[in-house]
Amino acid sequence: MAARTVKLTIAYDGTDYSGWQIQPGKRTIQGELTEAISNLVGAQVRVFGASRTDAGVSALGQTGLLQLESPIPTENLAQAITHKLPQDITVIEAQEVPEGFDLIGGAASKLYQYLIYTGKKRPVLEIRHCWHLPAKLDVEAIRKAAAKLVGKKDFKSFAAAADKRVSSVRTIFRCDVIEEGQWLYFEVEGDGFLYNMVRNIVGTLVDIGCGRIAPEQTEAIIQARDRRAAGGIAPPQGLCLMWIKY
Amino acid sequence: MAARTVKLTIAYDGTDYSGWQIQPGKRTIQGELTEAISNLVGAQVRVFGASRTDAGVSALGQTGLLQLESPIPTENLAQAITHKLPQDITVIEAQEVPEGFDLIGGAASKLYQYLIYTGKKRPVLEIRHCWHLPAKLDVEAIRKAAAKLVGKKDFKSFAAAADKRVSSVRTIFRCDVIEEGQWLYFEVEGDGFLYNMVRNIVGTLVDIGCGRIAPEQTEAIIQARDRRAAGGIAPPQGLCLMWIKY
Repeated sequence: MAARTVKLTIAYDGTDYSGWQIQPGKRTIQGELTEAISNLVGAQVRVFGASRTDAGVSALGQTGLLQLESPIPTENLAQAITHKLPQDITVIEAQEVPEGFDLIGGAASKLYQYLIYTGKKRPVLEIRHCWHLPAKLDVEAIRKAAAKLVGKKDFKSFAAAADKRVSSVRTIFRCDVIEEGQWLYFEVEGDGFLYNMVRNIVGTLVDIGCGRIAPEQTEAIIQARDRRAAGGIAPPQGLCLMWIKY
Repeated sequence: MAARTVKLTIAYDGTDYSGWQIQPGKRTIQGELTEAISNLVGAQVRVFGASRTDAGVSALGQTGLLQLESPIPTENLAQAITHKLPQDITVIEAQEVPEGFDLIGGAASKLYQYLIYTGKKRPVLEIRHCWHLPAKLDVEAIRKAAAKLVGKKDFKSFAAAADKRVSSVRTIFRCDVIEEGQWLYFEVEGDGFLYNMVRNIVGTLVDIGCGRIAPEQTEAIIQARDRRAAGGIAPPQGLCLMWIKY
């Protein structure tokens, strides 16, 4: 039985997890997947993820990768793994890929969505997946600033201090702000993201929408290459990794 | 300081609660509200509810009633109480009503919504508030049966055996089935509901949609006045009490 390399498309409600990455003594998405798949195939497997989503962050299209030796046909894998997972995690698709598939470097584009509710009353059924911010935001100012973020730039001002990656240059393809009644959707598509980058971008755009930062300052914030130049960080529960394209 | 009678409009995500009604040693909506309001006004209060929603059932428009002696103006009460509640419960509105307001008998109309997802993949972000039923349902057969439920009828066949109310006659004003892609919304409006009645109606309609019961049997099921004549019970998490009109 030859080993296969399998790419998984994974969705989860991250609310009750300490993020993607395995940590001893904590419930994590990677931990649950590793356990479910190891149980299924009767051998210890390792599941890698394309994005290390933070505690409380959800995903509708995370990508996982693993080496598998099992008689289970690839087309049955998604259902078989999902059957062993808690109800807030699911494997949407399993696909065989060539050995050496580049999970991190091969990602051409990722889309993150961030959801804000600006109404006064607490949205009890959606509160796990949005930032409840009962405020009148200046959406035009936010859009003006968001447009300045598009392009290939050094986003160091929006990276957590803990981010140790060598280069902080990334390309943002689009940063759209969609209004639907009292709901505000931020869609940020890029070729890659620094640690906390989307949450720091949204937090800064909210500071702009509240009038705490002028939209004209956006370029100066980028040029500063300093986290302290940007605004606050948006809470994790509003963030969702929508898809990753290879 | 004179006592006021205050009517509350309450919303909650019922997933993590053992239903509305206070039970020793369990987390309940009534328990949380009682504790929050008692803390707020510095005296023990009792909060009554118009509908005893089951464990796992949510509400966007439950009605509560209480007697209050407090200097807090009625217009500030909703926010003040919500401030002391967990994030999955909120008081939407507080309104002074005449003493002797009839919380149960005065309800002219209630709307319940039940949500089913018929797609194959587990909807991880909505799984707490829907019944995931990956099946092809015959919506026309369901609508045909649903129409037979409308009117003033004896709904004993749809009441839990534990329901001890004297009369099982209720009026259903409408029972609509709305399809949106792979989502199916049931809207049941009536002047009152027996214990488990909406969940038993939806469960029976699903049995009809799956072909286990013929839609033509609906009238015979009603006439039987026997729970065993109807179909299964739908799980609680798909149910939401939308509003109560007085």
